[in-house]
Amino acid sequence: MKIYGDLISGNCLKVKYVADYLGLEYQWVPVDVVGGGARMPQMLSKNPAGQVPFIEVADGRVLAQSNAIMRYLAAGSTLIPGDPFDQAKMDQWLFWEQYSHETAIAVARFRVLYLGQAIEDLDPALVAKGNAALDIMENHLAENVWFVGGSVTLADIALYAYTQFAEQPGFSLERRANVVCWMEKTKIALSVT
Amino acid sequence: MKIYGDLISGNCLKVKYVADYLGLEYQWVPVDVVGGGARMPQMLSKNPAGQVPFIEVADGRVLAQSNAIMRYLAAGSTLIPGDPFDQAKMDQWLFWEQYSHETAIAVARFRVLYLGQAIEDLDPALVAKGNAALDIMENHLAENVWFVGGSVTLADIALYAYTQFAEQPGFSLERRANVVCWMEKTKIALSVT
Repeated sequence: MKIYGDLISGNCLKVKYVADYLGLEYQWVPVDVVGGGARMPQMLSKNPAGQVPFIEVADGRVLAQSNAIMRYLAAGSTLIPGDPFDQAKMDQWLFWEQYSHETAIAVARFRVLYLGQAIEDLDPALVAKGNAALDIMENHLAENVWFVGGSVTLADIALYAYTQFAEQPGFSLERRANVVCWMEKTKIALSVT
Repeated sequence: MKIYGDLISGNCLKVKYVADYLGLEYQWVPVDVVGGGARMPQMLSKNPAGQVPFIEVADGRVLAQSNAIMRYLAAGSTLIPGDPFDQAKMDQWLFWEQYSHETAIAVARFRVLYLGQAIEDLDPALVAKGNAALDIMENHLAENVWFVGGSVTLADIALYAYTQFAEQPGFSLERRANVVCWMEKTKIALSVT
């Protein structure tokens, strides 16, 4: 399997975390996201959406979307709960992450780190959206050790991917002790340094 | 099962389409999205994300996120491909729909229909994003009858939900014959009027 990705991208890191956790063999093909690498013709021919990560399996078929790739790679492992309702709750968090978390925190981070926007010039609606997402996580983690069930799942990995970078574009984790604590546990569970 | 939703919302319609297609028994609990119904205290206590649709199962547990709900309800049916890679491709389209399609077409529609914004005043970046999404669909459907495999799946239902309304905020389907043709087939497959 080949994983096409950029290590600056939380979405790409998700796939790496899962592949490493499961001990899968893969070749990492670096794609320069900021330089438009995902939109080069040879990349668009593999993934017309012009995004990374995507994977290419042995017979040449391509799969895109970080959370769909994680779900595919982790099938049958403990990273996906066996109980149907727990599995559905995991999916709930995966979709929520892409709709309400990544679109605020990853977008703000991209603007600050890679487009050079000043933190104080970020769209207040974007900042509010990111803070609302972090509050939902903080409240959920006040009563739950993991996002779903009793051990680390893809829900934790998906949310860890960009939460670990939340302070870079100015989001504060100081009053969010449950999030900080959960990040430490996730890091250990994944053996991420 | 109770389905909390608003029939003006494509995301809510997805859940209704699947429940009706599978002949599931449910009680539809109407929530007025435009009037802020999903953010009323009794709704937030069920879904802190302040969104519909969500479902409440017999024991009171709640599941949110339209695509996660569809996946839960359709487990074991033909709406989810049995082949693992096809199932992963379905997931790819579900995540893409929420990240790159809904966020353009549903958002533009909401602004025009419910916030009263003029079509010509829509953010050009939003319009470009919607057109790019429709182009990706059109190109995919030039070589495929359905989004994944040989029959209707959740990928088609998710994408149908807002594509059917794409013209309301000004997106044109005139040069997108494959999309129009696929919408007709999806409508028939789902017995939607």
